[in-house]
Amino acid sequence: MKSINIGLIGFGTVGSGVVKILSEKKSFLMQKVSVDIKIKRICDKQMQIKRDVRVDRSIFTHDAKDILNDPQIDIVVELIGGRHPAKEYISEALRRGKHVVTANKALLAEDGQELFALANDRSKNIYFEASVGAGIPIIKSLREGLVANRFSKIFGILNGTSNFILSKMSKDCCDFSKALKEAQLKGFAERDPSLDVEGIDSAHKLILLTYLCFGRFVKMEDVFIEGISRISLLDISYAKELGFQIKLLGIANKKDRELEVRVHPTLIPHEHLLSSVDGVFNAIYISSDLAGDLIFYGPGAGQLSAASAVVADLVDLTRDIQAGLFRSTFNIVLDKTVQGLRRHDNFKSRYYIRFMGMDKPGVLARISGILAKFNISIASVSQKERRRAQAVPIVMVIHEAREKDLRSALELIDKMDVIKEKTVAIRMEEL
Amino acid sequence: MKSINIGLIGFGTVGSGVVKILSEKKSFLMQKVSVDIKIKRICDKQMQIKRDVRVDRSIFTHDAKDILNDPQIDIVVELIGGRHPAKEYISEALRRGKHVVTANKALLAEDGQELFALANDRSKNIYFEASVGAGIPIIKSLREGLVANRFSKIFGILNGTSNFILSKMSKDCCDFSKALKEAQLKGFAERDPSLDVEGIDSAHKLILLTYLCFGRFVKMEDVFIEGISRISLLDISYAKELGFQIKLLGIANKKDRELEVRVHPTLIPHEHLLSSVDGVFNAIYISSDLAGDLIFYGPGAGQLSAASAVVADLVDLTRDIQAGLFRSTFNIVLDKTVQGLRRHDNFKSRYYIRFMGMDKPGVLARISGILAKFNISIASVSQKERRRAQAVPIVMVIHEAREKDLRSALELIDKMDVIKEKTVAIRMEEL
Repeated sequence: MKSINIGLIGFGTVGSGVVKILSEKKSFLMQKVSVDIKIKRICDKQMQIKRDVRVDRSIFTHDAKDILNDPQIDIVVELIGGRHPAKEYISEALRRGKHVVTANKALLAEDGQELFALANDRSKNIYFEASVGAGIPIIKSLREGLVANRFSKIFGILNGTSNFILSKMSKDCCDFSKALKEAQLKGFAERDPSLDVEGIDSAHKLILLTYLCFGRFVKMEDVFIEGISRISLLDISYAKELGFQIKLLGIANKKDRELEVRVHPTLIPHEHLLSSVDGVFNAIYISSDLAGDLIFYGPGAGQLSAASAVVADLVDLTRDIQAGLFRSTFNIVLDKTVQGLRRHDNFKSRYYIRFMGMDKPGVLARISGILAKFNISIASVSQKERRRAQAVPIVMVIHEAREKDLRSALELIDKMDVIKEKTVAIRMEEL
Repeated sequence: MKSINIGLIGFGTVGSGVVKILSEKKSFLMQKVSVDIKIKRICDKQMQIKRDVRVDRSIFTHDAKDILNDPQIDIVVELIGGRHPAKEYISEALRRGKHVVTANKALLAEDGQELFALANDRSKNIYFEASVGAGIPIIKSLREGLVANRFSKIFGILNGTSNFILSKMSKDCCDFSKALKEAQLKGFAERDPSLDVEGIDSAHKLILLTYLCFGRFVKMEDVFIEGISRISLLDISYAKELGFQIKLLGIANKKDRELEVRVHPTLIPHEHLLSSVDGVFNAIYISSDLAGDLIFYGPGAGQLSAASAVVADLVDLTRDIQAGLFRSTFNIVLDKTVQGLRRHDNFKSRYYIRFMGMDKPGVLARISGILAKFNISIASVSQKERRRAQAVPIVMVIHEAREKDLRSALELIDKMDVIKEKTVAIRMEEL
């Protein structure tokens, strides 16, 4: 029986999950791969914190060098998260001839291109299944199961925290701050939730999916990002009346040889499966040329769920190592039919719009007059309440309009004396 | 650039799809795998039929031996379907040291155990991704992406034809025969639709999924199978009123160390994602111990969708061959916590029941009296119409009952003079 030695950097939630699986399922896994996957060393800054798994204390270290310099370690598993020093650790591991498994979407989204190039240069692999959709085998599916496909669309509910908050607001009719508090109580949201609710985490994952599907590494600053913190219960309710749910989507959409890459709250029709994805679940909807429209659905976070993906990567790497197989760019090919990224100004979309306008004659005429000037055409409109001489919500759905035109129109509208609040505009997708 | 030689047996819809992909996407695939996957020979009985792909006629043959005896052929792709001669071809290919790719669920469900043993004995692989869910990479996901997981439940919409018919009946309020005719017109159903609508095809696929998840090869005669041909529009409507959709499910469910393996129409609550899977789509819901509850969704049939899976298998095998990698039983491990199959008599389920009883006093009392004798407890009941002295539908939902008890009760009830038609009972699952 051969064995493969692992060095684990980061013994937090997911790291201890990995150790747990490898120890509790040792014989189960050995039956499958005929190799003993051994944790040789674990590095963490804080070894005092109690973990729910037993490990021989002698393999602990505070110094990552004890792992990076150990020639007997075949694979380094990086689970500390964040950009630094994770990047330095991974680079050093590759330089020293080790394969890498990581769940670090933030790092890969920012520095993936550099790290994958380094891995390629050293004929080593970086596996990162846990970085998107936790235990959902989406990365393997895109690379291997759908290897013959070209892709045209990705629509993903990629952040469990945001999806929990939006589902909660919709089901319990509560506002954002109450739903966030509940998410924090349940451990689904951090004390500072901005990475999740402002769409940053979704954007990181979207960059990785876009890379896998289109072979193109999009920079964070080129992703259009809008979070959910300004979504009000009012808009969730009106959207529901219109037959839509609001979800935070990560979207990469090929249109006329350009790629739109964006993260924002989106109205999805009730008939579409994505609209029924509730709570901390993730779902990734993908359009492919051969296998058609596919959805991958599952829990988007969780100790064992993410650890399940890390262990799957370890098993794959174990096979690669044994077979002397190096997977270079690993099935990622630049889609040459995509000529570039679409400028945000040129995005086109249908919109749900809520104006807060004075309840008096002529307001709608003035609003629609401005929209008409920008070639924006109205699909439906309804005033939601009657409160003479006060501001009331006017809900409008517009046909596909160019981002820039809509922004210009709303800027003018919001300057009108009869408009009492900043107008809310949320994109709609048919999918 | 190395090359791998393929022999294709069966040049029908899927076969010509495979040839099409390999020729149209040659350079795309070569960029990914650095190997030229070459169709060296194609065997089919009917070479006259026009295919939508161009092939050099010189590689055609009517005789499978031209492929099986060719020492330069590395992989045999079997796409003729049916049990014989597919079984003989695959066995011979393995004996002659060739790997095999097949989409033949009927054959694998019946003779898979024998064929996998033969492959193992010869250190060759059989890949069969296209046999379940066409292009959905479910088999790869179960074997590789979820390699560390144990499974407790499979609930699958596995037959596109049946799902099309049930969706059609539900959406258009038409009866079974009209929906079937529509399916036949659209090419979604065969002239003799019994394999699909009687649940046989679903059972074949369920056997393969059960093997992958539990390591156990269930015999066709041990699968409980009930099709959809007796589902009436009446029951679809009443189910909808109660908040349910009727779907044909393939179920493998671990309960108290026994496995229930069954295919039957099932009431699924509207809130569950599976209830929204419409048309020819398939969806497989799986409960795993680490990655949680997952759903894989996509088109369940189609030339390019199935061919996409065959090509993915070819790419994997190409890598295996190049790396000298043989994957013996390939990550399938017997789940020893399952002690055996549950006898059909002992299945337990909630039920939707429709009696056709005379509209007169005392009928419900007599029905519920009999149910009570068998310890069956009623969750809800409603009489659907009033037609004095005529038979009217009485719709009942019962709490979990043992199959055997319910059958015995219904047998007695159906003998009552006030019951005018055979009582309809359809299982319900909470999932």
